[in-house]
Amino acid sequence: MKKVCLVIGAGAGIGGSVGKKFAAEGYHAALCRRSDEAGLMTMVADIESEGGSASGHLVNAVKENAIEDLVAEVEKIGPISVVLFNLGAQIGYRSLEDTTAKVFELGWQMACFGLFRLSKAVFPLMTERGGGTVLVTSATAAVRGNAGQHSHAAAMGGRRMLCQTLNAEYAAKGIHVAHILIDGAVDAPDTLGKMLGPERYQQLREAKGLEHDGLLLPEKMAETYFHVAHQHRSAWTHELDLRAFSDLAWWNHAP
Amino acid sequence: MKKVCLVIGAGAGIGGSVGKKFAAEGYHAALCRRSDEAGLMTMVADIESEGGSASGHLVNAVKENAIEDLVAEVEKIGPISVVLFNLGAQIGYRSLEDTTAKVFELGWQMACFGLFRLSKAVFPLMTERGGGTVLVTSATAAVRGNAGQHSHAAAMGGRRMLCQTLNAEYAAKGIHVAHILIDGAVDAPDTLGKMLGPERYQQLREAKGLEHDGLLLPEKMAETYFHVAHQHRSAWTHELDLRAFSDLAWWNHAP
Amino acid sequence: MKKVCLVIGAGAGIGGSVGKKFAAEGYHAALCRRSDEAGLMTMVADIESEGGSASGHLVNAVKENAIEDLVAEVEKIGPISVVLFNLGAQIGYRSLEDTTAKVFELGWQMACFGLFRLSKAVFPLMTERGGGTVLVTSATAAVRGNAGQHSHAAAMGGRRMLCQTLNAEYAAKGIHVAHILIDGAVDAPDTLGKMLGPERYQQLREAKGLEHDGLLLPEKMAETYFHVAHQHRSAWTHELDLRAFSDLAWWNHAP
Amino acid sequence: MKKVCLVIGAGAGIGGSVGKKFAAEGYHAALCRRSDEAGLMTMVADIESEGGSASGHLVNAVKENAIEDLVAEVEKIGPISVVLFNLGAQIGYRSLEDTTAKVFELGWQMACFGLFRLSKAVFPLMTERGGGTVLVTSATAAVRGNAGQHSHAAAMGGRRMLCQTLNAEYAAKGIHVAHILIDGAVDAPDTLGKMLGPERYQQLREAKGLEHDGLLLPEKMAETYFHVAHQHRSAWTHELDLRAFSDLAWWNHAP
Repeated sequence: MKKVCLVIGAGAGIGGSVGKKFAAEGYHAALCRRSDEAGLMTMVADIESEGGSASGHLVNAVKENAIEDLVAEVEKIGPISVVLFNLGAQIGYRSLEDTTAKVFELGWQMACFGLFRLSKAVFPLMTERGGGTVLVTSATAAVRGNAGQHSHAAAMGGRRMLCQTLNAEYAAKGIHVAHILIDGAVDAPDTLGKMLGPERYQQLREAKGLEHDGLLLPEKMAETYFHVAHQHRSAWTHELDLRAFSDLAWWNHAP
Repeated sequence: MKKVCLVIGAGAGIGGSVGKKFAAEGYHAALCRRSDEAGLMTMVADIESEGGSASGHLVNAVKENAIEDLVAEVEKIGPISVVLFNLGAQIGYRSLEDTTAKVFELGWQMACFGLFRLSKAVFPLMTERGGGTVLVTSATAAVRGNAGQHSHAAAMGGRRMLCQTLNAEYAAKGIHVAHILIDGAVDAPDTLGKMLGPERYQQLREAKGLEHDGLLLPEKMAETYFHVAHQHRSAWTHELDLRAFSDLAWWNHAP
Repeated sequence: MKKVCLVIGAGAGIGGSVGKKFAAEGYHAALCRRSDEAGLMTMVADIESEGGSASGHLVNAVKENAIEDLVAEVEKIGPISVVLFNLGAQIGYRSLEDTTAKVFELGWQMACFGLFRLSKAVFPLMTERGGGTVLVTSATAAVRGNAGQHSHAAAMGGRRMLCQTLNAEYAAKGIHVAHILIDGAVDAPDTLGKMLGPERYQQLREAKGLEHDGLLLPEKMAETYFHVAHQHRSAWTHELDLRAFSDLAWWNHAP
Repeated sequence: MKKVCLVIGAGAGIGGSVGKKFAAEGYHAALCRRSDEAGLMTMVADIESEGGSASGHLVNAVKENAIEDLVAEVEKIGPISVVLFNLGAQIGYRSLEDTTAKVFELGWQMACFGLFRLSKAVFPLMTERGGGTVLVTSATAAVRGNAGQHSHAAAMGGRRMLCQTLNAEYAAKGIHVAHILIDGAVDAPDTLGKMLGPERYQQLREAKGLEHDGLLLPEKMAETYFHVAHQHRSAWTHELDLRAFSDLAWWNHAP
């Protein structure tokens, strides 16, 4: 029975690429997303066509028991060894006035409460098996709050602290939580592409994209996700950042 | 009509002391807490007996419309010029296993969502009047997550980012949000006292308390709260910490 | 005999204004700078004309024994109770190529080694007297390194850590070191004014200056410096930031 | 001609292990340390006996032109593609009183000025060749200052900011500077071993050592160093931490 890598938030960007990488390295990739069953099944088929093992799971993570049920379901396929928690709460610029209580709460439910619920569901299983890994895709909003980011930053800032409390309590029991801060635009058609619209997305890709590696390329990011998940337990990384070589770090301004 | 300082979370520690200080300096202190009407009324009476102006408001901040209604009610007394947002989410050490989803959510509702709702309710009024101040009592858990602090740290970490998004969007409109990180034990009978029990509280106070200033004294902290609220707009502080001289900062360990 | 506030780096901006404030509150202000004796003496005369007590000291702080001798000299006037360490290492944008080893070292000598030497000289005196305060004017470069800031950022980053080691070792002995991060342009003729030239300085002042408080006004900043130096020892601030209401914090970008 | 990995600070711990790893992966390892020629030559011989390529260089990095000459010398062997800057400034607990100006300066010369000089010497070569990598071994003292760490923390804090200024200026030119924060005790006979003495070192190793991976194992750390040096330029890490699974992160305290 293969070890399982569960991807929560398996879109065509980071989630899909990480799932593919783990499948290529011998894991069963359990890919979970909220919608677009056809897209999900294509990802599964792609992995299988290259000899890998994968399954697709349509789940609305904020529904009651959704994450808990997902963990139970996937455990039947094999022991969950790695989870990629890849749910974000980015909704673009939204002024305070335009940020409803509902939107603010939804951001928290996805990005922060979701990780809490996942941990409650999967840590007992991992602890019993002597260990496991949770990779958390994070964003710059986890470490600084910009205008128009009320929902996003509050959710991600809470989540970063949660990653720290989880490591503080579970690292010594063998569970490794890695907070991977993505500090730049990812070349992903179903997040960046949606946010910009197809035309501007194509323009951006052409301007600073594939040829110049000016966007974060998901399949390259997946290499680091995989590495972190396989660090020897004597040398674990809790926090790291990723950005394209041509991006200024979030703490920098143009001179 | 006096300017109003609204204190959300007016216990016998920081909240009450800050309310008292602002009342002594000419503000009407609108003191709000969830329970203990007798204690609340004693605080109001104390302020009035020294010639100050105060009112007491029993409010359960997590109830729907509670904060919104409170702002409306207090505005009838006078224009809210300063708010002290003093709700915490500290529940002591609680392992992941013992932290229920309900507790986790409640922490967020109090400490993070509460500030969001307050901002939605009071910022339009302050903006129209050309400015205002929100003092936010924060805790070490806002900047690092320890074991057993899942609910607390996730709520406070989110709140710190929210303070940054609020300043980024509203400082230039004259609203000053100050994140005041309390990094030590406060000499407060109804938080620390409750957490420790009366006997251990008294022991702690005697060991490192009043004589040695080894606990943060709320009436001294109130001086800094008041100062920050009255900084000239050319020199505002967004983030500061407070600890007793004999406390090691959170980033230090004993050598 | 008056308590002494020693200002190391007493230019016409923060240093001079803080000296003036302390003098107005009853301290002897010992003003120290490297050059411009006439300007220094004018500052002393200004303070004295308002009934205050001050002295001027021309010192090149990087010279061997300069800081040590200065402390000894000023102690003859009265006990040094507060030091403002106001030496900076800002030299504007300087590419790596254009940053000589000499410039890099000079930045460190002024901004970092200077504080170390001051601490070695004055802490024994303060400890013996039961306490004292060192206010350190810091800059954004202490917490993030931008292009062209090699010398400045390395010096200020080291200095911030030094402030932490000093507090960790001496706070419990009554010495309060406060790291005051200035995150914006200060309305100071002999730093900003020099950097920009008289015409652009005047333009900037008019554009966002006095009328709009869009520059940090030294005499307003001095209020906070004075407050921090007089916090009760049960509630000390180790780190705080100051910026104009209209400035974005260093961690923010325009949306 | 093989690509060269230059290791500055090639002791028996991180430096030697990283050199070995790069040699095993096809680089020439240029190993540089200050003393113990015999030990250095043994490391070179070990690498060669496994079919790798290596050279030993005895250099006192703080001497004038030492780093500059080293770079020139090593460039004759092959183009320097990766540098591991592994000089530390840890001298154990040293009170302010016991920290001489000389010691304080030496720490800065090794840990901070040394990296500046290296960058001045090697960046022009790397830029001309289209890129390169500098891996910087850092310590917890770079992000927080404890008592007795005056020299160490000031040097490392300055160095972290320097890494940021270097990335801000050179990342877009293809030079990747990675700040690798080691947050725990490394199983290294010639640093930890020396600090503790042979008996206590052996006790510590037995208590939490090899069997339990409770010390950072250099050969495992080297895997991450190598990975970071080979990240695709669309996904670079600027800052990451490493600690043993059983270590509490520096920001945590035991509950």
